[in-house]
Amino acid sequence: MNLKEDLPDASGYSECTKHLLPLMDTMDLLSGRWKFVILLALWFGGKMRFKEIQRNIPGITGKVLSKELKHLEEHGILTRTVYDTSPISVVYELTAYGKTLDKVILTLREWGVNHRKKIISK
Amino acid sequence: MNLKEDLPDASGYSECTKHLLPLMDTMDLLSGRWKFVILLALWFGGKMRFKEIQRNIPGITGKVLSKELKHLEEHGILTRTVYDTSPISVVYELTAYGKTLDKVILTLREWGVNHRKKIISK
Repeated sequence: MNLKEDLPDASGYSECTKHLLPLMDTMDLLSGRWKFVILLALWFGGKMRFKEIQRNIPGITGKVLSKELKHLEEHGILTRTVYDTSPISVVYELTAYGKTLDKVILTLREWGVNHRKKIISK
Repeated sequence: MNLKEDLPDASGYSECTKHLLPLMDTMDLLSGRWKFVILLALWFGGKMRFKEIQRNIPGITGKVLSKELKHLEEHGILTRTVYDTSPISVVYELTAYGKTLDKVILTLREWGVNHRKKIISK
């Protein structure tokens, strides 16, 4: 893999910034304390109600969970479906598109596993 | 790619947290406004003095650049070498280990490029 070939014309700063934007997008989407925890909860849990997700993530408040879910929904990572039951139930589920994050998650994790070993062995 | 197979035993929360730690490590290392800009400046620039890096990154203050470089050095991503010239010169360079971040950077970027298209076409 050769980063230089992939980003051929980064000598000018504006050109460089252009290359950085998609990187920043992905980082923004995934950064913060809870995003991965929510993604993995839904990955393993399939369709889940709000309360179920919350029970699976000790320490998260309803307000924060709601905000994070909304953000992920806006980006097409998950769907929020309201069922007309009594009481109304709201169900969240990862989209097929959300699942395309697997490569990103695994690559970040793989590097991190190795990095943790390196740091600990120092 | 199957995330479920890679993280086989995430039913308990503590097990799940254990899987998340390396992910968090990588995100922590790369998050923030400047990390990627600094990495790419050194990627394309090779060996660079502090002032050269700063000139390549409009808007960054000396204090922030110094802090970010120190953080990346502590993680083994780059080296800081002091040469006994007059005046003393301090040169930064990515390590071979720092360059192993290429896969992470390309994967994040690839997903982001696609995501940007998707968001724009909405």
